[in-house]
Amino acid sequence: MSKSIFYHAGCPVCVDAEQELVTLLGADNVSVVNIGEERARISEAEAVGVKSVPALLTPNGNVLHINYGASIEDVKA
Amino acid sequence: MSKSIFYHAGCPVCVDAEQELVTLLGADNVSVVNIGEERARISEAEAVGVKSVPALLTPNGNVLHINYGASIEDVKA
Repeated sequence: MSKSIFYHAGCPVCVDAEQELVTLLGADNVSVVNIGEERARISEAEAVGVKSVPALLTPNGNVLHINYGASIEDVKA
Repeated sequence: MSKSIFYHAGCPVCVDAEQELVTLLGADNVSVVNIGEERARISEAEAVGVKSVPALLTPNGNVLHINYGASIEDVKA
């Protein structure tokens, strides 16, 4: 697995994230999957650990969920 | 602004995301800022729109919060 896979569902947040990530990573390095349309791939996304969309499955097999962790208020606290 | 800035706070989630993103984007393309240590930069992060960490400020000025959007259950619903 050498490409990242960007899972999304066509939501505005997804589209914004997709545009940024494809630009940053390079279009050749990312496969984009709309699991809102390709519903058969929902189970695939779940199997690799996608908990929410948009999410990026990296070539290392890790999932980056694009949008949570700790709030900046927590950092300041 | 040609580099992305990765804001984090040293949390395990942050470290994992940092390793992935630096690998994917290339170390030369990302500045890493630990606002848990560089507390003077917390306000900078807030000013650019960082709501939580880890977060990536792209060269376009958009902030990608690494971890939320809609749950995969929402996609299925």
